[in-house]
Amino acid sequence: MSADLRIDSGRLQRRLADLAAIGEIEGTEGSSRLALTDADQAGRDLVVDWMRDLGLTISIDAIGNVVGVMPGATDVPPVMCGSHIDTVRTGGRYDGNLGVLAGLEVIETLKTAGVVPERPLAVAFFTNEEGARFAPDMLGSLVYAGGLPLKEALAIKGIDDTLVGAELDRIGYAGTAPLPGLVPHAFVELHVEQGPVLEAEGITIGAVDSVQGISWTEITVTGQSNHAGTTPLHMRKDPGFVAVACASFIRDLCVELGGSQVGTVGRIEFSPNLVNVVPATAQFTVDLRNTDEAALRHAEIRFAEFLKREAAAEGCTYQTRQLARFEPVEFDRAVVSLVAQTAVDLDYSVKTMPSGAGHDAQMLARVCPSAMIFTPSKDGLSHNPSEYTSPEDLEAGANVLLHTMLTLASQ
Amino acid sequence: MSADLRIDSGRLQRRLADLAAIGEIEGTEGSSRLALTDADQAGRDLVVDWMRDLGLTISIDAIGNVVGVMPGATDVPPVMCGSHIDTVRTGGRYDGNLGVLAGLEVIETLKTAGVVPERPLAVAFFTNEEGARFAPDMLGSLVYAGGLPLKEALAIKGIDDTLVGAELDRIGYAGTAPLPGLVPHAFVELHVEQGPVLEAEGITIGAVDSVQGISWTEITVTGQSNHAGTTPLHMRKDPGFVAVACASFIRDLCVELGGSQVGTVGRIEFSPNLVNVVPATAQFTVDLRNTDEAALRHAEIRFAEFLKREAAAEGCTYQTRQLARFEPVEFDRAVVSLVAQTAVDLDYSVKTMPSGAGHDAQMLARVCPSAMIFTPSKDGLSHNPSEYTSPEDLEAGANVLLHTMLTLASQ
Repeated sequence: MSADLRIDSGRLQRRLADLAAIGEIEGTEGSSRLALTDADQAGRDLVVDWMRDLGLTISIDAIGNVVGVMPGATDVPPVMCGSHIDTVRTGGRYDGNLGVLAGLEVIETLKTAGVVPERPLAVAFFTNEEGARFAPDMLGSLVYAGGLPLKEALAIKGIDDTLVGAELDRIGYAGTAPLPGLVPHAFVELHVEQGPVLEAEGITIGAVDSVQGISWTEITVTGQSNHAGTTPLHMRKDPGFVAVACASFIRDLCVELGGSQVGTVGRIEFSPNLVNVVPATAQFTVDLRNTDEAALRHAEIRFAEFLKREAAAEGCTYQTRQLARFEPVEFDRAVVSLVAQTAVDLDYSVKTMPSGAGHDAQMLARVCPSAMIFTPSKDGLSHNPSEYTSPEDLEAGANVLLHTMLTLASQ
Repeated sequence: MSADLRIDSGRLQRRLADLAAIGEIEGTEGSSRLALTDADQAGRDLVVDWMRDLGLTISIDAIGNVVGVMPGATDVPPVMCGSHIDTVRTGGRYDGNLGVLAGLEVIETLKTAGVVPERPLAVAFFTNEEGARFAPDMLGSLVYAGGLPLKEALAIKGIDDTLVGAELDRIGYAGTAPLPGLVPHAFVELHVEQGPVLEAEGITIGAVDSVQGISWTEITVTGQSNHAGTTPLHMRKDPGFVAVACASFIRDLCVELGGSQVGTVGRIEFSPNLVNVVPATAQFTVDLRNTDEAALRHAEIRFAEFLKREAAAEGCTYQTRQLARFEPVEFDRAVVSLVAQTAVDLDYSVKTMPSGAGHDAQMLARVCPSAMIFTPSKDGLSHNPSEYTSPEDLEAGANVLLHTMLTLASQ
């Protein structure tokens, strides 16, 4: 009976280790495979070999997304899973890779058991999800879902001044499959949480129902550089004070607004940045996130008002630059419920939760019913070679993926 | 009559321009002559030549302080004036140089008029006042006044890993005059204000009665780096938040305390300093100044309490490092009054005021009655090639110096 099927945890671990060995960060469990580099090429080649070994029909599109399809009993749109295999410079072993390799594990489990699902099953990996070399992040899935014209995507320049198009040609992953890509029946992405919630609450599976909206702003405040000893307070135009007052306000604002509202000032720079000099300029960033678009917009407005008032009071001027802005994404209720129910059926503890980070699934959600499965991240660590999820949790996540896909494929 | 004597403004301007040409910052009026560099050596050679031309008896001590003495009618301790000729990397034309070259101008004025004061007059320039290459600042005058053993001073390592002693040897300014240096009858330093007060109030002369006490602290806060999207606020240990809350508090504290209390956070650094990462560490500096030692100590304690409370509330740890701590200096009341009265006698507007910056005069104040004369600084600018004081104000300052020294020399 296919209801009794379970994935092979050892085989999944081996594939994760083999892929992590490419671009390995010595002395750690992590890897460095920036998108479209030689290391990414080697990682892609390995995963494509595995797809071929499993007899999948492989297609590569012009932005380098790779999709491997296992035929079903009928020739209808497939149930797709997937994620990405590019990493940040100091990447962990699981971020992205898990969703792709667990997909291969699902297919190998079915093939070994001789199970042919009603619908085809597809495993995809999307180009440049991390955005660590080329902006924006989630680039491949964005183009796949028709959210950005191919031509614009190929012309994007990276941090090393290379072009996406040229790098795709160079590593041999500029394919010919049509774009926007084929629309799946449904899409499910298994991913590590990259946050501390599941571990802190002792829960194995997250059924992800939404992705927080993201608002990134860079603020540059200009004042008047002065001697810290000789300039009376009332004669100062201190952009550093405006910056720290605003940064401090972000926390107060998020606490006041409550709900899913979070805010972070992760970057701040004073110039000239000397102990005894009132700065001439201060630059800082504000990262605001909320699962509700109206609430996110309200937080943005409240911050903008505060900034305007503080700068005026200090006699400073300022400029703001929007670095990123994504509206929140709601995943498909039926698929989210199916993930949660599948976890319960398999006797795993489960929590319905939002994702704080962006994922390829939010791009696929534009074109088909989609959801995500989270597994715990030790200490919430991510984008770090020490990123860790226990073998038991990985196994649980892959089993939930297996049975969620099987159910979707029987529809 | 010596009461009618006035300095020669054009001659003072020419010397200021000639000295500024050494280490000139192209396209500006400013100079770059870090202490004990080749540029400083060339500046020293020029001023020593001028001293020799004026027939002064020149002595150089082992920390490189240079004193030129004009004999008086009697062989008693001299009335000394002076300042420094080293600059910060982006130095102006007047900071320090004015006090030395106005001293030469006072002597040339007297010689030209054939006036021989009762006491000898001395003009000094002290080594490494700025502290831009070697810490601490005011090094030469500190050693002159017996505040630091010569051996320790010579062993100080600079920002370029050179040693004070080796650099003094290299540029030929390791002299043999005794240290601590000869104790003058009195010391008067003419200096630009480096702040905006005189200009803002339309006053020509500052009679400086004190130097603010200075407290510099570097604070390093350590927390837990985390993903800005996936980490709920209540699970954060954000050292960046502690830093900006403390920096913001400094302003509130100074406003609350009032009086002469000022405070500045001029330097702040987050690590890893990324828009979407809660920092792992945050470092910032606090510069607190007050003319009253007890009040300064109170401000330090209030800040320390706030830091402790905020760090604990956020689950962060911290370390503090004292970068500098000078008690306030009170100048000699009689000399301060003499400066103010002299300005009035010469029909200049005058204000008795503290100095927000440190000066060589505060070191001399340890051994003899001392005071300072301030002239206005346009826009309060200093440590900047655009530093500017009008020729009329420079002339006024030098005339007050002339007659203050003459009165002191008649005592």
